[in-house]
Amino acid sequence: MNVLIVYAHPEPQSLNGALKDLAVSHLTARGHAVRVSDLYAMDWKATADGGDFLHHQAGEKLTYRLASKGAFADGSQSADIAAEQEKLLWAQAVLFQFPLWWFSMPAIMKGWVDRVFAAGFAYGVGVHEGERWGDRYGEGTLAGRRAMLSVTIGGRAPHYSERGVNGALDDLLFPIQHGVLFYPGMEVLPPFTAYQVDRLKAEEWPPIAEAFKARLDGLFTDAPIAFRRQNGGHYDGQQVLKPGLGQGASGTRIHVHAPDEQAPRG
Amino acid sequence: MNVLIVYAHPEPQSLNGALKDLAVSHLTARGHAVRVSDLYAMDWKATADGGDFLHHQAGEKLTYRLASKGAFADGSQSADIAAEQEKLLWAQAVLFQFPLWWFSMPAIMKGWVDRVFAAGFAYGVGVHEGERWGDRYGEGTLAGRRAMLSVTIGGRAPHYSERGVNGALDDLLFPIQHGVLFYPGMEVLPPFTAYQVDRLKAEEWPPIAEAFKARLDGLFTDAPIAFRRQNGGHYDGQQVLKPGLGQGASGTRIHVHAPDEQAPRG
Repeated sequence: MNVLIVYAHPEPQSLNGALKDLAVSHLTARGHAVRVSDLYAMDWKATADGGDFLHHQAGEKLTYRLASKGAFADGSQSADIAAEQEKLLWAQAVLFQFPLWWFSMPAIMKGWVDRVFAAGFAYGVGVHEGERWGDRYGEGTLAGRRAMLSVTIGGRAPHYSERGVNGALDDLLFPIQHGVLFYPGMEVLPPFTAYQVDRLKAEEWPPIAEAFKARLDGLFTDAPIAFRRQNGGHYDGQQVLKPGLGQGASGTRIHVHAPDEQAPRG
Repeated sequence: MNVLIVYAHPEPQSLNGALKDLAVSHLTARGHAVRVSDLYAMDWKATADGGDFLHHQAGEKLTYRLASKGAFADGSQSADIAAEQEKLLWAQAVLFQFPLWWFSMPAIMKGWVDRVFAAGFAYGVGVHEGERWGDRYGEGTLAGRRAMLSVTIGGRAPHYSERGVNGALDDLLFPIQHGVLFYPGMEVLPPFTAYQVDRLKAEEWPPIAEAFKARLDGLFTDAPIAFRRQNGGHYDGQQVLKPGLGQGASGTRIHVHAPDEQAPRG
């Protein structure tokens, strides 16, 4: 299978660098084809602006969404953006390797999302009319692909637990896992995580590596997070979850289909 | 009072630009001193790397947290970083004006956080030993200051409602409001929001402007979100919320002190 690794860390000799290298070697040894977008090494342009569109004139008023839509449609996006879109279409799974900085991805990776996830490619896809709000959340250009975050975290695991002071990791990652990855159609696996990485001792690497390899082996077989599909009958015409669904839960949890929940009707 | 506006939008003739301009004029007319960090106009460097530290040698192994800690302590941070820290210390309130891109801030603003919120300045502050995990979440360098997000959103309000398909806006903004702003000590006001901004008609601007001015008038008087303080007795030694608190809630909501909840003991 084809796997794209999107990797963001400024130091090759870091745990993130080691995990990225391990993913490349292990997936390759398993027979997969692997490509890496090493954002720091590529000197990836993080900031979305008029320079992303070949026909944009300096000083011309910029509406980013419209410029993105037009440039995606007529092939006049900046070459770096088009190259990443081609990698995404090639991939059958996408692995994101990054350190959790301020409870999200580093800016350089957010800028990869902001620029590569173009209008007409990752949003604004499908029919928008009446109660139909396009192909998103389980449908879209990247449907049929899998995605997994591999995240290193400076803090301690209990701080990210269900009632931990930082908030539950699932909640913190919801804007990425649901809003960035599931939105254009990817199925999202639970994240791979390593905690307290600032204090990592050499003897702690082998068990992390083994756990990571096990997750890599499940990349195409492990069950994804059961996010509800927008057009799967769970949401009403206002895109609000129908009464009776998500009972007993609140917050982001209601957008995950509970195993014992009846399938929605109509 | 002193107000810093951190503003990120590539187009001055945008709704974000208009809201930023309105904030400057309205706050100034009310007698406040206002400074603006216009990140696009400043060509703000979004990507955190070794170039952020004057003493970092090319090719030298970089541990960003340690380099940040050392450079903050000995005054060898990049000048652009130090200048923003000075503005934050000057400010009594900080307003963040940005469009919601992929359910978070634009990369250029995330890069402002990644770089300006240095070790020893915004994290790693205070005593860390035993069950004391530093001064954070309500305490820290920026304590006593207020913060407010002003966010423009392309989608419709119901999609961001309590059970909306995108997730509740409070949940989506939790990593920023709680994890970025409350973490170093700022009190966070509920966000100002404008929805469906891609379809905005001219006649819709006056009510938006009036609503925004009302929020600006409450910048120093409106009640902040009642996030629980880490060291306020709500969390145990593992930084996990104590039993009995956050009853009937789940997700990010448990970290907000309910009005009818008894104060924790011990």
